[in-house]
Amino acid sequence: VLITGAAGFVGARVAESVVNDPRFDGATVTLIDTVTPRLSGDGVRPLTGDLSLPNGLELALEANPNIVIHLAGVLGGAAEADYGSARRVNLDATLNLFERLRELGRRPRVVFASSVAVFGPPLPEVVRDDSPPHPTMTYGAQKLQMEVALEQFSARGWLDGIALRLPGIVARPGADRRLRTAFLSTLFYAIAAGEDVTLPVSPKDHTWLLSVEAAADAFIHACLLPRESLGRRRAFMLPALRVSIEELVAAVQQQFPGSGAQVVYAPDADIVAQFASHPPLSTELADRLGFAHDGDVDRLVARAMPREGR
Amino acid sequence: VLITGAAGFVGARVAESVVNDPRFDGATVTLIDTVTPRLSGDGVRPLTGDLSLPNGLELALEANPNIVIHLAGVLGGAAEADYGSARRVNLDATLNLFERLRELGRRPRVVFASSVAVFGPPLPEVVRDDSPPHPTMTYGAQKLQMEVALEQFSARGWLDGIALRLPGIVARPGADRRLRTAFLSTLFYAIAAGEDVTLPVSPKDHTWLLSVEAAADAFIHACLLPRESLGRRRAFMLPALRVSIEELVAAVQQQFPGSGAQVVYAPDADIVAQFASHPPLSTELADRLGFAHDGDVDRLVARAMPREGR
Repeated sequence: VLITGAAGFVGARVAESVVNDPRFDGATVTLIDTVTPRLSGDGVRPLTGDLSLPNGLELALEANPNIVIHLAGVLGGAAEADYGSARRVNLDATLNLFERLRELGRRPRVVFASSVAVFGPPLPEVVRDDSPPHPTMTYGAQKLQMEVALEQFSARGWLDGIALRLPGIVARPGADRRLRTAFLSTLFYAIAAGEDVTLPVSPKDHTWLLSVEAAADAFIHACLLPRESLGRRRAFMLPALRVSIEELVAAVQQQFPGSGAQVVYAPDADIVAQFASHPPLSTELADRLGFAHDGDVDRLVARAMPREGR
Repeated sequence: VLITGAAGFVGARVAESVVNDPRFDGATVTLIDTVTPRLSGDGVRPLTGDLSLPNGLELALEANPNIVIHLAGVLGGAAEADYGSARRVNLDATLNLFERLRELGRRPRVVFASSVAVFGPPLPEVVRDDSPPHPTMTYGAQKLQMEVALEQFSARGWLDGIALRLPGIVARPGADRRLRTAFLSTLFYAIAAGEDVTLPVSPKDHTWLLSVEAAADAFIHACLLPRESLGRRRAFMLPALRVSIEELVAAVQQQFPGSGAQVVYAPDADIVAQFASHPPLSTELADRLGFAHDGDVDRLVARAMPREGR
């Protein structure tokens, strides 16, 4: 198993889940990131490398993986802020990875982290598997381009890809302020720490969320799905819980009853349009394949915080 | 005006039409291709250059165009035969062109030659503007990726793009046998020359076609469409005539009554699936914008042959 972006928020949790999952017993798990992944143990190979450089890519592929979880990327706001870096990592390095995996000839399962950002605002009244994606942000457009490549490589038998469109994943500790979605995670940590927080959305806005634990489960599920269960369509939205901001705030407050933190709302029209105007979501394809969201907002909140934060 | 791929079959005809169109009077028309475009005249700058090399790209952009017709590409079967070259030209060079146009800051109209190949087989019962594209060939996947980039660059105001999904364009003289669609053009020239021809399809199969003259008209129309008439959706299928192979053969035979050429059918299942199983086509968006196909098969045939071939 190769996991790229393995030191990141989602990557580290996916790595931990893979290493602790008996279904991967005996596998060598290569973890690579530009900062060294902290996980270690039997069969775990934490590597420091930049996939956008030829030696980083070759280093990652040294163990000739037959399962690849590709999470490395320049995310959302960071991609907006540095187009050149986003192109280099999200497009060039990702496509280079797919091409090298084709050349290695093992037809590996490749689980690619795509994003809800493939849908640009305004969204349709209900987002379905067949809703046409029209991304407006660089990040979403690049993810969509790589979905197209992954699906075509899969159709030709060059690899065996699945692109999971991720909703907002909570709760990212010390969320990078360059991520315009940071507020969704910040609210967890602020309330936990009893710190007042200002949210750039309204209480009645809705957003699609998944706990980091549910996201890790989804990546593992995608690694193990039999090829026969998959059709031509290889990119789809993961099930996500659609919650109102006030519902979410209430659930987090209930989790930390002594918090006393004040939550203030100062909606930013652009952030609301991008990240908190999510309509009902239908994920028939993912449902049929056995993917699932957290079930309810209390479970989402309980599974969102890293263990040491609870 | 900059026209890339200007020495190619479609490119040369588009170039000729632009140069002869009074609506472009006074414009400098830069033509670039890896082989020197043959057109010359007042205000015409034929250049030899490879857009996939930095100096070729800079050469093309020297005149700081505000209209770009991007036709350069590694086509169909050639892209299948040489993935590396297809990636370099169809993806890297195309995206580099879009990025440089963004940096030049003129927000140029960019008309990009996309392809029906964005739809992989099997096609839906009717192909509509919202039919989800799932390309299986490298060429179609690369065109689709660049549509996504062009549309996102347009949404952000970085340029003002239109991607025209082209059906089969006839009749390519001396059609490159690497193009698996060559038979559609070959049949014109064989019948014209009185040479017997074997077609890899059945008489009752259907295909979407446009004459090269209608294609050139469509590119010019796209150059001149007011920005206000365009929405977020910037990639769409051009109207095409849906003809049966026997109808097409009969019309070409009528055009060359003394031919005597025998037409033999030897269907190849893969070619039929890819290029001659075209269902009814609905092109509402293009229709609304004023694009049109040839009208009927006789007019298609009359406008398909280059002037010297008539």
